[in-house]
Amino acid sequence: MTKVTAQMSVSLDGFYTGPRDTRGNQDMSGWMRGPEAPGFFRVTRWAVDAMAWRERQGFAGGEQSVDSQIVEETFAAAGAYVMGRRMFDAGEVPWGEEPPFRAPVFVVTHRPREVLERQGGTSFTFVTEGPERAVELARAAAGDKDVAVAGGGELLRQVLAAGLLDQLELHIAPVLLGDGQRLLGPGLGLGADDGIELVPARVVDAPGVTHIRYTVTGRSKLVLDDRGASGDLVGPAATGQ
Amino acid sequence: MTKVTAQMSVSLDGFYTGPRDTRGNQDMSGWMRGPEAPGFFRVTRWAVDAMAWRERQGFAGGEQSVDSQIVEETFAAAGAYVMGRRMFDAGEVPWGEEPPFRAPVFVVTHRPREVLERQGGTSFTFVTEGPERAVELARAAAGDKDVAVAGGGELLRQVLAAGLLDQLELHIAPVLLGDGQRLLGPGLGLGADDGIELVPARVVDAPGVTHIRYTVTGRSKLVLDDRGASGDLVGPAATGQ
Repeated sequence: MTKVTAQMSVSLDGFYTGPRDTRGNQDMSGWMRGPEAPGFFRVTRWAVDAMAWRERQGFAGGEQSVDSQIVEETFAAAGAYVMGRRMFDAGEVPWGEEPPFRAPVFVVTHRPREVLERQGGTSFTFVTEGPERAVELARAAAGDKDVAVAGGGELLRQVLAAGLLDQLELHIAPVLLGDGQRLLGPGLGLGADDGIELVPARVVDAPGVTHIRYTVTGRSKLVLDDRGASGDLVGPAATGQ
Repeated sequence: MTKVTAQMSVSLDGFYTGPRDTRGNQDMSGWMRGPEAPGFFRVTRWAVDAMAWRERQGFAGGEQSVDSQIVEETFAAAGAYVMGRRMFDAGEVPWGEEPPFRAPVFVVTHRPREVLERQGGTSFTFVTEGPERAVELARAAAGDKDVAVAGGGELLRQVLAAGLLDQLELHIAPVLLGDGQRLLGPGLGLGADDGIELVPARVVDAPGVTHIRYTVTGRSKLVLDDRGASGDLVGPAATGQ
């Protein structure tokens, strides 16, 4: 049964990269000197060090670790991808003729464009009817595998907010960045009494990163349930928050 | 050897309570109808359901679970506490004659006040010389046990930013709140190329909450280390962020 999944590396304070580069388009060496890079390299280090990630990118070396197994199973589970337009724009040139996806990718964009066929099984289809339609097309292309939200953060939030996401895996890097682009929080369209509930499905405690996979239950009302404690003793003071 | 520790329940998007109540002082029933309560109850539910937490508060019932064991060991490890002024103000009345701490508490405040002796081993000492001095006094009072930062979030950030914290345990509730008061991020005084590094020391995967204990390594420069990958292939596009 096809699930819609997403996974992302984040710092312990919830950032997936440094603060947005406001200087406009930069080439890779400009990007490397910008504000996004230091945080980005820190939170993704566990993956860049993993053999399975390096193999997909055509790099030698890397560690054969539990982290590498997680990268491997993540790639293996995806039968198709949905991707944000900004991520595609940043990746089109560096990915080259043989991108690491090896599966159909559906790019959510406002600009119509012909399908782009690449080597190794990757194709890019440009979808102008929004994230929901992109997920629908990816689902049809995924066979019995999963549809993976490739990124970036904005598309992930849209898919989550629209109730389309079945599984979210966070790779929590043990670092506080203090500032940057946040994956979660505002942008989910939640009212004051609403939450999105999840259930931890798997926790992998690697030395340099904690992988937590959640099943997304969905939107629900937050309740003022004091669990039978007497009203005047329950509050921030009582639990030490 | 005495450590300075802190622990806090947070949502998966990093909030420890709902948005701040801007209506000014509220009694408990006013607070219950305010914006903080729904998120607060959700992220602390695991503790309120735990037998060890309920015993400390004088409530019957609760579950004898791994969560309860964690509450128990958390209370047992603390030989003294440091606490923010706002948390003390909110707690003074509801805690009553026998507060749950059963140890000396050092309250960081600008208002001098006599030591307040309570039953069961709790005392409140008011420290006007800042968080560092409060930690020093608590250290002297803790014997061979730990100094625990009782809260709130602001004091925790100050202690962390000052490099005084040795251990941070987060209880991550599997819920997205979308908005509220964030524990971590801004307020740590980190520059664009700085991070605070931690090492995961223990992960406990309970059904309704994930407990991650970190040892705080301290402030360090973030490095632009591409781990030997060729420069033009490494970036947000390559790792799918």
